[in-house]
Amino acid sequence: MDSRPIGVFDSGVGGLTVLHECLVTMPNEDFVYLGDHARLPYGPRPLEEIARFAHEIATYLESEGVKLAVVACNAATSAALPGLQASLTVPVVGVIAPEAAAAVRATRNRRIGLLATQATVAAGRYEALVRTLDAGVRFSAVACPSLVPLIEAGEQTVDAVREYAAPLKAAGCDTVILGCTHYPLVAPMLQRIFGRGVTLVTSGEGVARGVERALAARDLLNPRTDEGDYSFQTTGDVRSFKNLGTRFLQMPLSDIAHIDLQTRVTA
Amino acid sequence: MDSRPIGVFDSGVGGLTVLHECLVTMPNEDFVYLGDHARLPYGPRPLEEIARFAHEIATYLESEGVKLAVVACNAATSAALPGLQASLTVPVVGVIAPEAAAAVRATRNRRIGLLATQATVAAGRYEALVRTLDAGVRFSAVACPSLVPLIEAGEQTVDAVREYAAPLKAAGCDTVILGCTHYPLVAPMLQRIFGRGVTLVTSGEGVARGVERALAARDLLNPRTDEGDYSFQTTGDVRSFKNLGTRFLQMPLSDIAHIDLQTRVTA
Repeated sequence: MDSRPIGVFDSGVGGLTVLHECLVTMPNEDFVYLGDHARLPYGPRPLEEIARFAHEIATYLESEGVKLAVVACNAATSAALPGLQASLTVPVVGVIAPEAAAAVRATRNRRIGLLATQATVAAGRYEALVRTLDAGVRFSAVACPSLVPLIEAGEQTVDAVREYAAPLKAAGCDTVILGCTHYPLVAPMLQRIFGRGVTLVTSGEGVARGVERALAARDLLNPRTDEGDYSFQTTGDVRSFKNLGTRFLQMPLSDIAHIDLQTRVTA
Repeated sequence: MDSRPIGVFDSGVGGLTVLHECLVTMPNEDFVYLGDHARLPYGPRPLEEIARFAHEIATYLESEGVKLAVVACNAATSAALPGLQASLTVPVVGVIAPEAAAAVRATRNRRIGLLATQATVAAGRYEALVRTLDAGVRFSAVACPSLVPLIEAGEQTVDAVREYAAPLKAAGCDTVILGCTHYPLVAPMLQRIFGRGVTLVTSGEGVARGVERALAARDLLNPRTDEGDYSFQTTGDVRSFKNLGTRFLQMPLSDIAHIDLQTRVTA
């Protein structure tokens, strides 16, 4: 048993959709969530730069005493997961592998589509993992550069979503991976565009189950029997994090501190 | 085939969680949604008054040319469904029967809980339907007077939710009916409080499937092959409907008109 919190991080609010599933799956755990709003978005950045940011944050969270780190960002997982797992002492769980496995399990016609940011599509981790599990899958990836900004702005996303979905509809995909932690917010719209016959795969639930398994295997589950605590840190503006984040977490979002990763001063 | 729209109505924004499921299940249908914000909330009102409002709205929607009416409000379904089905020419679908049936299918220990507004609990329709399907079920109902106002205000609902959930946890319910179309917004919080072992039953998906079956059986499905249109009317303030409604619909919410049910003037 281990009463230390679990650390979850992302470039911004997207990872809150993963934290959401963790809170439901593991009600007795404590969580610390860090959003790197000061350097958002990660999606258009080079993979080397994203990897540097991810190492900086994960190392900070480990120094703060988390017992496990969740990389709740597809671009950061693409860029840095093996490196983080090699360099940190605590276990590190990313968002891509559970989704790739779920997609291979779900598809009936072996045509899998991916919607993701440029960095994630460029890194090719989803395609590599899917092909490792089933070399016969026809895989189609669509980079969606405008989707994260539109979702964050709460703008009319339907035209953009329809445009990005079109190539995957044309390819006859029966399973579509939402390869960005922001995208669950447009999942209903996508389900309407694709129809009920297409399975949408998101990362949250698979990650939450993976975290629980990782903790149980190492005897690291929290001994508390009441509901755990969760708190937030952002490298950006506290108020805009709160305003934007509630939509993503779908639970009350309070106890937010500003953190400067260079000086490690929280306020 | 019938290209007329489907009418959906509620006291306010709660029914948008039902419309949401309809939009996903029936992408080729057109919808008109009416929210009776001027007289919200229905939950604390006498059943006779709620029934009068429901008849007024359903009759208006029928006169506007809908091919089927969905009563997307548990209090209005409790108060008026049989009367509406008897008096309207078009088919009328309510929110309670699909949930009651789903709860009886889901329970393993035959202990079913209900969270709902005062009017819905007082009407006793859920309990009657559940007992018709399985007379051996132990049924526990909790009226939650403060939940709709808290959810609408986007307030910190967690203490209220925990308090209302407590009697159902104590009763050992393994299945809990969310008997108000507002409650899907606190479903994640409830799932965390009850734990993954408890099945939460909401009305949206069952209603959507029921509507589709009702249309198909009568050859009333829409012949269009592209995505349908949806529009909104409110007896209250257009701007506050738009601001509040997006959280409930989880899709873009535009094309909202004000309607005066007495004069039937839209603006």
